[in-house]
Amino acid sequence: MGKKQKNAISPTRADDYPEWYQQVIKAAELAENSDARGCMVIRPWGYAIWENMQRVLDRMFKDTGHVNAYFPLFIPLSFIEKEAAHVEGFAKECAVVTHHRLEPGPDGGLVPAGPLEEPYIVRPTSETIIGATYARWIQSYRDLPILINQWANVVRWEMRTRLFLRTAEFLWQEGHTAHATEQEAIDETRQMLEVYADFAENYMAMPVIKGEKTEAERFPGAVQTYAIESMMQDRKALQAGTSHFLGQNFSRVQEIKFQDQNGKEEYCWTTSWGVSTRLVGGLIMTHSDDDGLIIPPRLAPKHVVILPIYRNDEERSQVIPYCESLKKELESQSYSDGKVEVLIDDRDVRAKHWEHIKKGVPLRAEVGPKDIAKNSVFLGRRDTGEKQGIGRDEFVTTVASVLDEIQNGLFERAKTLREDNTRDIDNLEDFTAYFTPRNAERPEIHGGFANCHFVETLEVAEILKKLRVSIRCVPIGQEEVPGTCIFTGQATTQRGVLAKAY
Amino acid sequence: MGKKQKNAISPTRADDYPEWYQQVIKAAELAENSDARGCMVIRPWGYAIWENMQRVLDRMFKDTGHVNAYFPLFIPLSFIEKEAAHVEGFAKECAVVTHHRLEPGPDGGLVPAGPLEEPYIVRPTSETIIGATYARWIQSYRDLPILINQWANVVRWEMRTRLFLRTAEFLWQEGHTAHATEQEAIDETRQMLEVYADFAENYMAMPVIKGEKTEAERFPGAVQTYAIESMMQDRKALQAGTSHFLGQNFSRVQEIKFQDQNGKEEYCWTTSWGVSTRLVGGLIMTHSDDDGLIIPPRLAPKHVVILPIYRNDEERSQVIPYCESLKKELESQSYSDGKVEVLIDDRDVRAKHWEHIKKGVPLRAEVGPKDIAKNSVFLGRRDTGEKQGIGRDEFVTTVASVLDEIQNGLFERAKTLREDNTRDIDNLEDFTAYFTPRNAERPEIHGGFANCHFVETLEVAEILKKLRVSIRCVPIGQEEVPGTCIFTGQATTQRGVLAKAY
Repeated sequence: MGKKQKNAISPTRADDYPEWYQQVIKAAELAENSDARGCMVIRPWGYAIWENMQRVLDRMFKDTGHVNAYFPLFIPLSFIEKEAAHVEGFAKECAVVTHHRLEPGPDGGLVPAGPLEEPYIVRPTSETIIGATYARWIQSYRDLPILINQWANVVRWEMRTRLFLRTAEFLWQEGHTAHATEQEAIDETRQMLEVYADFAENYMAMPVIKGEKTEAERFPGAVQTYAIESMMQDRKALQAGTSHFLGQNFSRVQEIKFQDQNGKEEYCWTTSWGVSTRLVGGLIMTHSDDDGLIIPPRLAPKHVVILPIYRNDEERSQVIPYCESLKKELESQSYSDGKVEVLIDDRDVRAKHWEHIKKGVPLRAEVGPKDIAKNSVFLGRRDTGEKQGIGRDEFVTTVASVLDEIQNGLFERAKTLREDNTRDIDNLEDFTAYFTPRNAERPEIHGGFANCHFVETLEVAEILKKLRVSIRCVPIGQEEVPGTCIFTGQATTQRGVLAKAY
Repeated sequence: MGKKQKNAISPTRADDYPEWYQQVIKAAELAENSDARGCMVIRPWGYAIWENMQRVLDRMFKDTGHVNAYFPLFIPLSFIEKEAAHVEGFAKECAVVTHHRLEPGPDGGLVPAGPLEEPYIVRPTSETIIGATYARWIQSYRDLPILINQWANVVRWEMRTRLFLRTAEFLWQEGHTAHATEQEAIDETRQMLEVYADFAENYMAMPVIKGEKTEAERFPGAVQTYAIESMMQDRKALQAGTSHFLGQNFSRVQEIKFQDQNGKEEYCWTTSWGVSTRLVGGLIMTHSDDDGLIIPPRLAPKHVVILPIYRNDEERSQVIPYCESLKKELESQSYSDGKVEVLIDDRDVRAKHWEHIKKGVPLRAEVGPKDIAKNSVFLGRRDTGEKQGIGRDEFVTTVASVLDEIQNGLFERAKTLREDNTRDIDNLEDFTAYFTPRNAERPEIHGGFANCHFVETLEVAEILKKLRVSIRCVPIGQEEVPGTCIFTGQATTQRGVLAKAY
């Protein structure tokens, strides 16, 4: 005791990355497993980060012409059956509601009663029920486009769950749009991919690769799926958001039709796109360190925590008013799309600065009588660990630019990690070596991202499966370079990012 | 055609109030029934009103020290069983999840598969699952109070549903707090009742009576239930929000315990409180008229719709820029806790001003070449129906105060309706006459609110049931006046508001 703690999180990233992830979540009080299998409780600090994500994304959606609405939680079983690929994709993992009340059973406990004529599925995604609604709403080209987003909970009965990254219930937004032309729907799909990339890079400070998914990785029922892919600190990829061009697949089975300007009946072209609480997992794994969470300032619920330091009531009566006026001054500074958010933590708790380190607050300002005498604060930066005295006025006037600096620094650090762990690979031998862990006890230590020519065949799928590597995406806008598939030797211009992934 | 429409909504309120309500919702594009039984689709205009309600309430909750979090949708069946009154209250109407996948059935369709060991209930309210979480979080008095709110969807399998007022799935917020002392929990319960009343009166322009519910009307498991009650235009009462003091009922069955400052183990005192999308129904029924919805400005998604009027491209090129600069000027005016929200509706649609009347936009500004020549707009007010020319500058500088005037006028109109239809009644004969419809074809025409002395007995319950009247609440803070129960003649000081209700 009294000795400076080395790391707040045990194990460290180097020791056991997956367990480190769980411990960061616990230490930062972000979320925990609940009494409902695979469902999480999102704790206030974790939820505040999600609220900030929602606020920014919601504004971005509205700025691109979308409005919000709300559709039912329950989907009639018959709706799910309509789109063949869609059934295949979701039937194996869904919560089925079969009864509508409880009654006393033979052993005194309650048992399900009131069987439903047609069971309902708790939505795993809402294409089918929203499509059925759009079919009622749309008659003419004048009704198009429809540009709607929904913030909702969805359920996919995953067998192996991990907080934020894969849970049975999760929170998300799902955009669903209907258009008169194919091109307009494709443009929408790409626009929303850009929105997601903008959000990931400029708010989450998480560099992403924008690309198209291969056939095997497409959303069930989609014609094209685009995704943003990011590298985590263990060099695995995280798919952080997807945008789907659905063509007329859903509109055909759901009869979403309109009369065009010539009075001719046509099927609509539809899209859907979503991001979820998985983003919080991505944020954690991109920036956090062995002392816990690091939150990029633009998404931090609090930017500065002020820690008053005093030994008696007399000192307290001097320190607290000083902290309160400092808080006020800091909060008068604008930052990002709002103002600097400040918390004074005056709880009578030992070593509470560690709590805020573990929770990832960007700046900690300790204020005691000695600091006040010098009209300064003792400032700690979460990202670099730097600590130093700084004049009060300088602190106030520079706080927004320091937060910007932290934001940019986090992005650059993450980008450097990705660049340092990405390689062009043109033969299978190198590829295999790249993805084979050098140490059996540390399976997470492997190459990173590989840029390779490939074709999509069953043979290739088999090789990749053995190495536990997947084709993450074919980046958008890259130059077409002729080459040969590193797995089959076939000539191809198709070049993608391959990686182990979450 | 060409002839001025008399009323946009058919039937009118006087003709058929319940059907008028449905038609207002349809005409204003607020919501509709969905393909999932009893669940509604909340359309963008209706959802935008709900978003405004959420924004204001969320700020009020945060200003009173609450934070948001998120708890699971699913509640293990065994959790529901724990609190006896709670089971009784919710077992008869809940969605039960019994399976976790679908597989092909004998006739080719999909059937539920993967039966769960323990069924889950889709949350009808979250006391049990949140209580179980709090039991893990709380050890010491230092962990208290816990002041958490959740925005979520809940499901109660209602047999007879009505859009917004009673639906199988609805959106709401539920606050759940835990305290070290009884008094603190009671104070919290009352504080949140005040928050709801403040919101109802100052944002929804809906006057409310704050009162305590009688035993029969209490939340299942609560010690005391407080509610805000409002009179709709058909003189029926709507319960618009509730705040429950749960005593130690839930903490005892869920073992929510803490060590007090002397190291003694105690059960926590808990509360819960909620409002839901039902508020949107209350807003509709309080203010709307035979032309459709009227939205109190402080909750209106748009305050002003500008309708450009032109006959050709030349006029258009003059009118549109004028409208755009007017929009900009209006939007530079602050109003309520934001700014004036303006929409330009330049769609090529006939009689589109009627759409905005039906949707309840507070102000419509028509702008054509003649108005521009006079530097004025032709302004229509939704609340009074007044239409008149007004100078552009005057319009811009007075828009916020006109909106305030509308807001206040709506509140006063609703308050007058309630005052005109409330009576002190001290005998059963008058009471019976008051609540007996004078016309069998118009059962909704009856007295209104009655203030009466009463006692709560089975006999009284029987009489009230026959008259389809209920005890809405015992108002808070009213003077205690000795009297006799109008049903039984028993002496009592208990005096309440009795009414027919939604």
